[in-house]
Amino acid sequence: MEVIDKKELCAIVGEHNVRDDEADLYAYGSDSSVHEAMPAVIVRPDTTEQVQELLRHANDRKIPVIPRGSGSGMCGQVVPIRGGIVLDMRALNHIVEINVKDAYCRVEPGVIDDDLNRALKPHGFFYPPTPASSRVATIGGEIANNASGMRSVKYGAVRDSLLGLKVVLADGRCLALGATTRVAASGYPIERFIVGSEGTLAVVVEASLRFVPIPAFRCLGIVKFNKIEEAGEAISEIMASGCQPSMLELMDKIAISAVNKAEGVGLPDVEAILLFEADGMVREAVDYEIAKTEAGCAKHGGFGIEKSYEEKEQARIFAGRAKLFPALSKYREGLASTSLADDMAVPFSRMAATAHLIHEVADRHGIVMTAYGHCGAGCMHTKILMDTTKKDQWAAAREAVAEIYEAVHAMGGTTSAEHGIGISKAPAFKKEKEAALDLMRAVKRAFDPNNILNPGKLMDAPDDWVTATRLRYAVTE
Amino acid sequence: MEVIDKKELCAIVGEHNVRDDEADLYAYGSDSSVHEAMPAVIVRPDTTEQVQELLRHANDRKIPVIPRGSGSGMCGQVVPIRGGIVLDMRALNHIVEINVKDAYCRVEPGVIDDDLNRALKPHGFFYPPTPASSRVATIGGEIANNASGMRSVKYGAVRDSLLGLKVVLADGRCLALGATTRVAASGYPIERFIVGSEGTLAVVVEASLRFVPIPAFRCLGIVKFNKIEEAGEAISEIMASGCQPSMLELMDKIAISAVNKAEGVGLPDVEAILLFEADGMVREAVDYEIAKTEAGCAKHGGFGIEKSYEEKEQARIFAGRAKLFPALSKYREGLASTSLADDMAVPFSRMAATAHLIHEVADRHGIVMTAYGHCGAGCMHTKILMDTTKKDQWAAAREAVAEIYEAVHAMGGTTSAEHGIGISKAPAFKKEKEAALDLMRAVKRAFDPNNILNPGKLMDAPDDWVTATRLRYAVTE
Repeated sequence: MEVIDKKELCAIVGEHNVRDDEADLYAYGSDSSVHEAMPAVIVRPDTTEQVQELLRHANDRKIPVIPRGSGSGMCGQVVPIRGGIVLDMRALNHIVEINVKDAYCRVEPGVIDDDLNRALKPHGFFYPPTPASSRVATIGGEIANNASGMRSVKYGAVRDSLLGLKVVLADGRCLALGATTRVAASGYPIERFIVGSEGTLAVVVEASLRFVPIPAFRCLGIVKFNKIEEAGEAISEIMASGCQPSMLELMDKIAISAVNKAEGVGLPDVEAILLFEADGMVREAVDYEIAKTEAGCAKHGGFGIEKSYEEKEQARIFAGRAKLFPALSKYREGLASTSLADDMAVPFSRMAATAHLIHEVADRHGIVMTAYGHCGAGCMHTKILMDTTKKDQWAAAREAVAEIYEAVHAMGGTTSAEHGIGISKAPAFKKEKEAALDLMRAVKRAFDPNNILNPGKLMDAPDDWVTATRLRYAVTE
Repeated sequence: MEVIDKKELCAIVGEHNVRDDEADLYAYGSDSSVHEAMPAVIVRPDTTEQVQELLRHANDRKIPVIPRGSGSGMCGQVVPIRGGIVLDMRALNHIVEINVKDAYCRVEPGVIDDDLNRALKPHGFFYPPTPASSRVATIGGEIANNASGMRSVKYGAVRDSLLGLKVVLADGRCLALGATTRVAASGYPIERFIVGSEGTLAVVVEASLRFVPIPAFRCLGIVKFNKIEEAGEAISEIMASGCQPSMLELMDKIAISAVNKAEGVGLPDVEAILLFEADGMVREAVDYEIAKTEAGCAKHGGFGIEKSYEEKEQARIFAGRAKLFPALSKYREGLASTSLADDMAVPFSRMAATAHLIHEVADRHGIVMTAYGHCGAGCMHTKILMDTTKKDQWAAAREAVAEIYEAVHAMGGTTSAEHGIGISKAPAFKKEKEAALDLMRAVKRAFDPNNILNPGKLMDAPDDWVTATRLRYAVTE
């Protein structure tokens, strides 16, 4: 890697779009993960042509380039582990076209998810793959991680909504991939391959996305279980009965207790809660889904069902889940909520088994872990609550994470449901996909022969996330 | 390429699974396209291990291997353009698992689509991407071509139902790709990249597929239009209004006239017909979709609507569409129905424009072309009806095909909706994807460095489909 010549970068994007003072480098050295590593410089292109020129420049000089949205990723995807240029894509933030006649839109990668949905709303449509971070998450970041969110059980992930991409390759060439048609069978679907590639294959400069009608009716409810196994059986019962909920969420005892303590929500003191939702254009169809869901829950010990078709009442019912994320940070004095083993996917019949696994492993290692997630899609989330000042807590967390993923793989699950791999989950990912790593590396070389795009991630990430980069926490003991 | 040693192949799969007599080679030298080219030998493996050993053998000797299902592809995908081994995958035809608890199944590639759906039916589920050829089409062939079919407007294509694949690479390694979970964000989605790759990247030996509940109610209807533009406006009106039909089919005047003449169906003598269907678990929801569809049609001149919730009556209404394929062969004495420009996808607002384009180009070139297709998904099908004994008709067809695809690309369409590229559509595909061909070739090399898997297709296919291979027709004048 050559020394980065700031002047040349300024010549491409203008001086105001190149920053390398200490405070900026620090801010762009981390995301929502536990990692940090300083970039050499931050560059913020305004146009596709500038992206092309920047990549040509970097490729000639073998300088790492890390495309970045809002940095809400939880696994270190945009932490510049090998230094180089952080490519801040947020200035490419235009909604290029909303084509109602053909039910698709074209957007630049810096568009914020909520902004896109605000723009679609007057037309009666929405873009479904919406993560909890939709207030800040960019469409580009969502594409990089194949994001999905709470309604993935009905509406799928980014991969299911994507029609086409305009990308810049490592050598600066700009390619239009895919089409704006609803179906396509024109050879290799490179556009879909880039979804989930975490910025390692190409830089997205535009995406064509399907949207779907906003349902006229929504019913949201909550149901309690005294045993988490019963909740697990209810999940499988609901999904296997041909029911099509638009949301099905699990919260375990720790999650319930966290929101009650921190936010005073007053959730019932039970072992598990399911939150369910159905939506549709016709009230009777929503009634049908809700009735089937209730029956599935009741059959397996679910009780105390509350539900509503009213937005305000729904917000009240959902308050505990909505406040879970901040509440976990306040669960116990001295414990921080860290994103490690933050998500995984299992066949949905294994949600309860996965929750048990998480609790058992955490107990054995002297850390606190909560189990919650979009259980209708088999998506399990956890946080590790630990004293981040203590070395032995990090060692315990590392062992717990490894054990959990080993068991998840053994039950037919996969390392990430929707948060991606980055650095933190790479060791588990590399074990899961061991036989395919060579092929992944060969494909990466086909896209990016000089390995400049987000190097050192996914199959090329280090084997130990604790020592791979500096931690964002001061470990004092 | 070395000379193929039949004895060595017999040692791998057994003598009864290796055939090279003239009649077999002839039968395996063509599919449902216009092309033919003789293989050296046909090999029918019984197990994954045999597939692995065969590929190791062929890879060491650089012998082409063409994986094949039932040969119902229409573009020459399995025509062995460079000779070699046709790998008949139909003995791997087991439904390995139907997992109702987690709503997926695992099947081998030789399973016939209809057989899978027969097996799923007692559980109340179906596998949605079902082409018209489902009576013979194998799951492996459908994966190779990203097949979809009439209900793709609601249920998508293979790509939308696929969870995981077990494949054998060119060098004989066996890889498990993807997962059996509903969502996944674990790095490169190689399994989805193989969907639509037409046997050029890997040999599928098992697929994990989602299934969906069989709807309790289905309503099917027909509506007439005096102008095809009006039908086109109705399509866009329906789709852009947030309506979610399970089927929306267009038939043009030639298609109508063909089924009336050949099959005596008695369709109305109008310029265009739309067939529509909605399905769901709740009658009121189906009523809603049908009412919206009818309103969309009526607004743009649709008349004479007939519809039914009864299966028998639906079959009567649908008879014309069901008999279209054989009827086209009988449209006019001396004209054969050939699959050239057999499908394409356009934004659905452009269906009528595409039909006009097809008619205008056909008229100008002295051939007959019909326009029909799954218009709710923007999928347009055509057949070229021509005197296949005449050289100048082939020349005219070639020019017509080139002109049509050029115009389709210009209106934002893509070369194939669901039939794939193979040999016949490769010239148009190569024009459409010109900027990405180098990348496709690099990726192909990453999978298959010796280029043994179905070589000479897609981006590596010849530029002229008429001269690329022998035609299956005797051209005498």
